[in-house]
Amino acid sequence: MLPHQNHGKKSKVLVFGAGNFGSCLADHLEDSSHSVYMWSRSGDQVKYFNQYHRNPEALQDHEFAESITAVGPEFPSAEMVQSMDVLLFAIPTEGVRETLTALKPTLDGGRIPLLIFVNKGIEIKTRALTLEIIADTCGPEIAKIATFLSGPSFAKEIVKRQPTSVSVVSLSKEHAQQASDLFHQPWFRCYTGDDPIGVELAGALKNVYAIAAGMAAGLGFENNTRAMLITRSLAEMTRVGTAYGASPLTFLTLAGVGDLFLTCSSSTSRNYTVGYRLGKGEQLDHIIKTLGSVAEGVTTTKGMKAIVDELGVAAPIASGIYDVLYEGRDAEERANELLSLPPMGELDLSVESGKPAKRLLEKLGLQS
Amino acid sequence: MLPHQNHGKKSKVLVFGAGNFGSCLADHLEDSSHSVYMWSRSGDQVKYFNQYHRNPEALQDHEFAESITAVGPEFPSAEMVQSMDVLLFAIPTEGVRETLTALKPTLDGGRIPLLIFVNKGIEIKTRALTLEIIADTCGPEIAKIATFLSGPSFAKEIVKRQPTSVSVVSLSKEHAQQASDLFHQPWFRCYTGDDPIGVELAGALKNVYAIAAGMAAGLGFENNTRAMLITRSLAEMTRVGTAYGASPLTFLTLAGVGDLFLTCSSSTSRNYTVGYRLGKGEQLDHIIKTLGSVAEGVTTTKGMKAIVDELGVAAPIASGIYDVLYEGRDAEERANELLSLPPMGELDLSVESGKPAKRLLEKLGLQS
Repeated sequence: MLPHQNHGKKSKVLVFGAGNFGSCLADHLEDSSHSVYMWSRSGDQVKYFNQYHRNPEALQDHEFAESITAVGPEFPSAEMVQSMDVLLFAIPTEGVRETLTALKPTLDGGRIPLLIFVNKGIEIKTRALTLEIIADTCGPEIAKIATFLSGPSFAKEIVKRQPTSVSVVSLSKEHAQQASDLFHQPWFRCYTGDDPIGVELAGALKNVYAIAAGMAAGLGFENNTRAMLITRSLAEMTRVGTAYGASPLTFLTLAGVGDLFLTCSSSTSRNYTVGYRLGKGEQLDHIIKTLGSVAEGVTTTKGMKAIVDELGVAAPIASGIYDVLYEGRDAEERANELLSLPPMGELDLSVESGKPAKRLLEKLGLQS
Repeated sequence: MLPHQNHGKKSKVLVFGAGNFGSCLADHLEDSSHSVYMWSRSGDQVKYFNQYHRNPEALQDHEFAESITAVGPEFPSAEMVQSMDVLLFAIPTEGVRETLTALKPTLDGGRIPLLIFVNKGIEIKTRALTLEIIADTCGPEIAKIATFLSGPSFAKEIVKRQPTSVSVVSLSKEHAQQASDLFHQPWFRCYTGDDPIGVELAGALKNVYAIAAGMAAGLGFENNTRAMLITRSLAEMTRVGTAYGASPLTFLTLAGVGDLFLTCSSSTSRNYTVGYRLGKGEQLDHIIKTLGSVAEGVTTTKGMKAIVDELGVAAPIASGIYDVLYEGRDAEERANELLSLPPMGELDLSVESGKPAKRLLEKLGLQS
């Protein structure tokens, strides 16, 4: 049993959203002795949670600590918000603009709590990243100190203290460090970074590639193909992200390749399932009808297609998924088109020479 | 059914080695209408293969084309070697020096066939990469045009035409292209590159990390931990490779992250199995005894430890595996030490700004 690590003071945290990820983070923070409140807009959920310390809508097998208090369904009062050290947003991207707009008057003039966002995806109507939504609603000064947590992290494993690592990033190094201090434990390791744009793009794009991974499985392809698809998706994601203005290195992080790998390996995710069933020949509208709601990657694919076209960057895999989802193309036929593309160079390499390579290259007569 | 693609002339190919990978590549090349010969040092294997078109020691379920000819057990004659367009080496790294030394007189003065190497790992005694072994035995001119094929490619899936992609690299762009032309098909896509040192290091290091992935599973860790381990292994591999003098980008290729991902996800590999059983508390000598032979990663770990120490680069995961294999450390205790390392920055990012990010950063008042 590993001991807790202690980084700075104990905080008062208000979690917006009581889904899988919000609940597991509430659980983790309480386990690190922070005071945790969790807001839900469902009065029944709030009542049930406070009575039974179980979440009727997420992680049903898990018993939460009694000290976590559910609040709602009314929006948290200005007084409550102002008493918090940390506001953690675990709500869908589509709800962020509304929530921040409601919150803004509360933040005016007072001490700004640490803001942490864990949602992924692009706002459908505006194609905005969350960083931009924050700037639009709360202004640039608040956006500059907002923090983002992302990485390969199934909620049901987090509540079991299965070792997990995430990227924690912000344009403000100091605030990324604060968010890391809040969360970091041996079983929940935080790695800080300064590229929220890249982390957000990676978090959105991975859902498109999860559809592709599911589709490949539905078409009967095995391990070699999955490894190829993940590798080429990572290259594509990096290309798109770099053209967008993110740092290419961000795609090597836990929020990049780590989350891509987990999502594309998870046959139970909604995005993977949509892809799998498309690969088996089902029609999208039928899949969506029986799934009950649209998987996030399905809408992200549309937004990404627009972004990719605007940037003029090659994204054959994402474009292929778009064609199957929105142009009525047959999955197998479209996959075969990708496989039939001509051979090419893999990457543009900028060679830097270290010592053993230099020595070896000298031996080959290639280097002075 | 995808049609074959035709890239240049049909070649005469001699494959050295008749194991899993040599046989599947022989099969693939024959399927692309090349003339294929496969050398084995086992007379019985040669006889059986030519009579039944099955390999008694690899891919036993697969029926090979009648036109593939097994040769041996004598070393191929100078006449035969000189009649070949391509020599493909699918033998263990430990056998490369001896084979090339035997071959050298045959290559002198004549037309040099295209040389393709698919072995992985570091020569135990010298810690040399194959590129260096080639230089030592055949001279720098031949090493400069040698080509290397590597990537996520299970042999049993290749013989089923499961879509597979590999990196094909050489210090000579022209020769990498020739090797790509030889192999490329829609179901066996080749991506060319120019960093054989990075590709070789990645191919060796991944076996160390496969032991780590197995060990994590043996310790009872699940998906979050595996994704974290693969991501941090990729970062470590890139750091070691760059310090060595390879291009950091090589670790993003099929031979890098692609093969790492496949190897760490494959619970049937020997390296993974060694790690898994260590994680379950078994002793290394007992595991090796019952496995019948040493898994490649076990010896590579020793060589890598020496290289990493010499470079003075941080490689906590590989060092942890070394400690469990060679210093008698307990796997769980050593894993807990890794998890207890202090929080840190994830990567040094060099930010390049593209258009949308610039626009967004301007909106935040951060960029001119």
